[in-house]
Amino acid sequence: MPLSEFALIERYFRKAGAMRPDVQLGVGDDAALLQSPPGAQLVAAIDTLNEGVHFPFGSPPASIGHRVLAVNLSDLAAMGARPAWALLALTLPKVDERWLEEFTGGLSALARSHDVALVGGDTTLGPLSATIQILGHVAKSTALLRSGGRPGDKVFVSGTPGDAAAGLAVEQSRLKASAEAESYLRKRFLYPSPRLALGDCLRSYATACIDVSDGLLGDAGKLAHASGCGVELEFDHLPVSEELVSAVGDQRARELALTGGDDYELCFTVRPSEVERLRHNLPPERWKYCCIGTLGETPGRINVTRGGSVIELTHSGYDHFASG
Amino acid sequence: MPLSEFALIERYFRKAGAMRPDVQLGVGDDAALLQSPPGAQLVAAIDTLNEGVHFPFGSPPASIGHRVLAVNLSDLAAMGARPAWALLALTLPKVDERWLEEFTGGLSALARSHDVALVGGDTTLGPLSATIQILGHVAKSTALLRSGGRPGDKVFVSGTPGDAAAGLAVEQSRLKASAEAESYLRKRFLYPSPRLALGDCLRSYATACIDVSDGLLGDAGKLAHASGCGVELEFDHLPVSEELVSAVGDQRARELALTGGDDYELCFTVRPSEVERLRHNLPPERWKYCCIGTLGETPGRINVTRGGSVIELTHSGYDHFASG
Repeated sequence: MPLSEFALIERYFRKAGAMRPDVQLGVGDDAALLQSPPGAQLVAAIDTLNEGVHFPFGSPPASIGHRVLAVNLSDLAAMGARPAWALLALTLPKVDERWLEEFTGGLSALARSHDVALVGGDTTLGPLSATIQILGHVAKSTALLRSGGRPGDKVFVSGTPGDAAAGLAVEQSRLKASAEAESYLRKRFLYPSPRLALGDCLRSYATACIDVSDGLLGDAGKLAHASGCGVELEFDHLPVSEELVSAVGDQRARELALTGGDDYELCFTVRPSEVERLRHNLPPERWKYCCIGTLGETPGRINVTRGGSVIELTHSGYDHFASG
Repeated sequence: MPLSEFALIERYFRKAGAMRPDVQLGVGDDAALLQSPPGAQLVAAIDTLNEGVHFPFGSPPASIGHRVLAVNLSDLAAMGARPAWALLALTLPKVDERWLEEFTGGLSALARSHDVALVGGDTTLGPLSATIQILGHVAKSTALLRSGGRPGDKVFVSGTPGDAAAGLAVEQSRLKASAEAESYLRKRFLYPSPRLALGDCLRSYATACIDVSDGLLGDAGKLAHASGCGVELEFDHLPVSEELVSAVGDQRARELALTGGDDYELCFTVRPSEVERLRHNLPPERWKYCCIGTLGETPGRINVTRGGSVIELTHSGYDHFASG
């Protein structure tokens, strides 16, 4: 890209995100200079969204900007970490001022709401793709890992998984519902809410945590695997939104809650003896989470039960509507 | 991509890079947990390489792995920082084990030689693209910035710029030379050497520094702009390699040294009163740098002179051979 176009982009990015006193040098030099708080561990994650893979062609630019930051913030939420700084690598087929303004608007609004500064970036020519590197902090030895679960621990999930997969299907005209349900579901796909406040609080209660990005069943399975356990989820306990049920019915809604992607909720485990304290201090109605199962003794045994019997499920995720 | 393919990739990346005691948690959870040394500033940069834009289609995978880390290490070198940790976002059109092995080999060899740990990543499906986020450290208030130059400061460059642009032209069969020169020039494009040791030492001497990635003239101009100065470079003082001169002749070699891209050398400025101390403590023959000009009083005035007269130059960079 010509230098003038780079300058244009830099102008957009300089204004994006929160102002933070711990940024000694942000966008504009070869690298950013940052000051971590004393005693904290640095927490780092990176995630990419590619057009046609992670979002449909022609998606709203504000949603792409929001989502690429949200999926990274969700990784930090799963560690119980607080975000501080982000770097953006943006690949664009061409420079489109309107597109950039909307993209940066979506990114910046979410960044400011979580006090995240955009401290650097790289803009290149190519097929549309956005990568965010997120940096944050957590007090030493308090981070939530995937590996801390033990057999008998109760398994919880936040929010109402399955909505985002249905929202993507609405975006792609593979699913029809009421105008109200469509609007709600689309928003759940386009503008996910990373559960940072919940993740932060869970450091005092959870034994393990993972963010639900690839489908609850698979991600709960990853947590169980890292913890050397199996996992059993109760189909009828899966939380589903009214809108999702109205759009696809109760059975299909719970299947989507298990296997749909892009939810960015938290799946976490708590020792049975700690559940009462959790519920008391973080009331489920307010914090929006519920118990959906238990970690088991047998590594690799991942079951979904209904009324005491194990049920069979396919793991199709994205193909739900195509094959449904 | 199916989970099994992700697992394969993760297996490659777990083994990549150096082992470091300051990595509390690396590849495999939602984020990495890292411990910065007390008192140090964190230094962060991100850079992307896209197939067909930053490297030709069909480039050696080991070179892509090497270069995507090298361009990021070069940003840290320009700050005088020491690298510690890298995260990789890799987008692949398909999973090809042989390709991955070579890519990871190239990345890992360079990472180990600079004691860089690969602590996280994201692998996605799409057009071939690699992004590295690099993290490192520098003692507080000692980082080299672009903005510290003053009128009268002497301008230096490391190495022999122009080689990489000619090497790319050889790669793309736009330039023919002797077998020896072709081999040397190709290597300079495919496997650039980030000048980390030089950048680290320069913190005691340089007033400003930038890495030369987009062409020496343009990058020296950026340094001058950030420092509120102009810059004058002496054409006959530009360092060029014997191989480049043998391939394109003396005049063209110096033009390429000014405007070719992908060199990843350092351009830096030193107060006249410090030049003697610099030369004494960092002998130019050993550290491979030379004086090429002076910062001027007038912001925006960027001149190349020869025998006392200003000469005209085009800034075509990549188009050199196509139009030549």
